[in-house]
Amino acid sequence: MTSEFGLIQRHFSRATPGAVLGVGDDCALLQPATGMQLAVSTDTLVADVHFFADADPEKLGWKSLAVNLSDLAAMGAAPRWATLALTLPEVDDDWLAAFATGLYRCADQFGVSLVGGDTTRGALSLTLTILGEVPPNQALRRDGAQAGDEIWVSGTLGDAALALAALHGRVNLTDADLITLAARLYTPTPRVELGLALRGLARSAIDVSDGLLADLGHILARSGVGAIVEYTHLPLGEIVHDYAAHPEFDACVLSGGDDYELCFTAPVAHRKALGEIAARLGVRLTAIGSIRAEPGLIVRDAQGQVLDMRHTGYDHFSA
Amino acid sequence: MTSEFGLIQRHFSRATPGAVLGVGDDCALLQPATGMQLAVSTDTLVADVHFFADADPEKLGWKSLAVNLSDLAAMGAAPRWATLALTLPEVDDDWLAAFATGLYRCADQFGVSLVGGDTTRGALSLTLTILGEVPPNQALRRDGAQAGDEIWVSGTLGDAALALAALHGRVNLTDADLITLAARLYTPTPRVELGLALRGLARSAIDVSDGLLADLGHILARSGVGAIVEYTHLPLGEIVHDYAAHPEFDACVLSGGDDYELCFTAPVAHRKALGEIAARLGVRLTAIGSIRAEPGLIVRDAQGQVLDMRHTGYDHFSA
Repeated sequence: MTSEFGLIQRHFSRATPGAVLGVGDDCALLQPATGMQLAVSTDTLVADVHFFADADPEKLGWKSLAVNLSDLAAMGAAPRWATLALTLPEVDDDWLAAFATGLYRCADQFGVSLVGGDTTRGALSLTLTILGEVPPNQALRRDGAQAGDEIWVSGTLGDAALALAALHGRVNLTDADLITLAARLYTPTPRVELGLALRGLARSAIDVSDGLLADLGHILARSGVGAIVEYTHLPLGEIVHDYAAHPEFDACVLSGGDDYELCFTAPVAHRKALGEIAARLGVRLTAIGSIRAEPGLIVRDAQGQVLDMRHTGYDHFSA
Repeated sequence: MTSEFGLIQRHFSRATPGAVLGVGDDCALLQPATGMQLAVSTDTLVADVHFFADADPEKLGWKSLAVNLSDLAAMGAAPRWATLALTLPEVDDDWLAAFATGLYRCADQFGVSLVGGDTTRGALSLTLTILGEVPPNQALRRDGAQAGDEIWVSGTLGDAALALAALHGRVNLTDADLITLAARLYTPTPRVELGLALRGLARSAIDVSDGLLADLGHILARSGVGAIVEYTHLPLGEIVHDYAAHPEFDACVLSGGDDYELCFTAPVAHRKALGEIAARLGVRLTAIGSIRAEPGLIVRDAQGQVLDMRHTGYDHFSA
């Protein structure tokens, strides 16, 4: 590593009270809580694949951690530590300062210590690895869904995808609407508190990063079950709702990624408890369908007719 | 992620007996041993910066894990788990199969479970995050060197750097010698067993990845001490020894990276114990100098004359 690149680490060398030893040695040293299990996830964001290369670096800093926190949320794990591997084409101090600002803002909000990393020269990309803790046998996994479970989704669907469709010129939005939806795309809120609250209630969970149908499909595949989703129950924000007749609508709501909401299943008996969680956390929770033993994922309308979802890009063979 | 890229994960989905839950959920779930501390390190290797883009993928798989294991070794931590973030310009099944073979060969040899990862499209780069365990207060840190400590190095220095100099056309080697040295460059052996054996004996340690002077300099900076290194004590392999008169020699031995040996300091009283470890593990251990209170890192010859090391690329201001 050139010394120029070594200096970059200064942007990421804040004190790490959550670690025994933070940045500056061969490894960080961490003290896990006794008896807890560790939840670990790694995500890479590549310029011009996952974000625009000229993206606002502060927002990018937030998002790079937020998407990893979303994975922890989907496991019901409490965030503890993260490492950052940052590859940059050149050293731009202003960019780095803004990126670090966004990253630490997200870290502070969710109680994460950035304990280590690496900085290298190359095409712009970021790899975050996140570590959280969860008591044994309480993690929310993909493989626990059972026939009869209700399927729930937090928040609203399609906001980030509609923003992306507008940015790509496929949808026209007013400036005000674009700004509102772009916040979902650029600075998503990981559902960390919700994930913790769902321990002991949800039988399975996943975060919606690849689209509702694809991600619910992962639960079905791992659990060996099928599902019926009620098209008219899908939770929509006001702006997305107004685009219900647009050709992009179904793709945004059912196959759009980047919302980072949680999709989970729970026994019907937990409906009241889930309502109390929604009220306490101020998070909308919507039952959108049910798990059944018969394999396959179908979406049906208010009349019970099965809808053809191939136009959304969803490949039912992957479920 | 396209399904084409999703399929890549099949190459990295072996059973993970070392994990509660391995690849296939939002996070991996791990059960740390009670009371142990976690050592965590992240390293990125970028094509055409850290390796040739057309490098043998099996060797690259080995090296990408080995360099992370070297960081654990330098902490005296026992390897447990790793995650892999792999960015690829295209899906090449043969390349992936060979890369996975090398990675798992290294993982199996050192008892590491690959528990998760991410695969994305982009310029070729790899980020490994490794997790190991070490009992509280037994980690080998950079900040523990004390005046009077002897400075030790494992193995031999300069082998990998001389191979690289030959591959870049700056040094002529016989084919046999190049093959021998290239093994040090492409498939380094992390000193994991040595790191574990040094718990309770070494006061500080680091792995030699950026060159002896730079890495020893990190120990000095973190410990607030200085050092004298005896030029004639530096441990050399036969091939490197024969190049002692070559203009590249000092740069290879003193500033060459990629040897992944351990440099550590220990009280003189531990000399006998270190000799027994060297014999038991079959690892050469050489005392190359001593720590002193006076700041700065100097190299002196057999006559006690201080040598000018600026031609090695070593910047003494960084110590």
